Amino acid sequence: MNISHIEHIGIAVKSIENSLPYYENVLGLKCYNIEEVTDQKVKTAFFKVGQTKIELLEPTAEDSTIAKFIEKKGEGVHHIAFAVSDVVESLADVESKGVQLIDKAPRGGAEGLQIAFLHPKSTGSVLTELCQ
Amino acid sequence: MNISHIEHIGIAVKSIENSLPYYENVLGLKCYNIEEVTDQKVKTAFFKVGQTKIELLEPTAEDSTIAKFIEKKGEGVHHIAFAVSDVVESLADVESKGVQLIDKAPRGGAEGLQIAFLHPKSTGSVLTELCQ
Repeated sequence: MNISHIEHIGIAVKSIENSLPYYENVLGLKCYNIEEVTDQKVKTAFFKVGQTKIELLEPTAEDSTIAKFIEKKGEGVHHIAFAVSDVVESLADVESKGVQLIDKAPRGGAEGLQIAFLHPKSTGSVLTELCQ
Repeated sequence: MNISHIEHIGIAVKSIENSLPYYENVLGLKCYNIEEVTDQKVKTAFFKVGQTKIELLEPTAEDSTIAKFIEKKGEGVHHIAFAVSDVVESLADVESKGVQLIDKAPRGGAEGLQIAFLHPKSTGSVLTELCQ
């Protein structure tokens, strides 16, 4: 697997609207995109920090995985996403090394990316996403 | 405050030795430095991923904040560190905007950086570090 950089850090929030003032006024970052990912039942807000994006994730339904995450653990870092050149190849590579996959094949994520998640059981409890 | 990039992501682990194979053999990253930060009672291991480092944090004492974190929440992402040009100025800036500080003044961190933590109560539950 060839990771070039950290594509984004996903942060679970109850409300993007309530979180924006901290990111924009305190940290001085600029939200350049707010987008709903229907099949994941989340609204996302993006900020660019150097090479990496911060992606705020707000649940849009009670059965959203983000809603369940917040209920269990509270707001906070939800996942780390690594940029790879080829998600399909990377998934095959890590699976051959014994990593449990959440997504056996890439699916569409926010910002038109092809994404796949690795299971936190195999990644030291850090929910890990590969993006292309 | 002027954030240039994400300096590092701190990840709490029970054992750096046991975590290394995942980071090196599965993700293909290279650990370039292992260092003990005595006053924080942690051993740290660093990997470079583009502009950002991954910092594994292993507690070296039972009363280490990392030991307490793992006991409470398990292994996983512990903090996000932003690179700023001036930590003292940034602390004054965020404090004037109502952010609660853990460190009122910078202190020495791993890799010779000047660091200070903001309180997660003020940062949407994401423990946040400023680095210079």
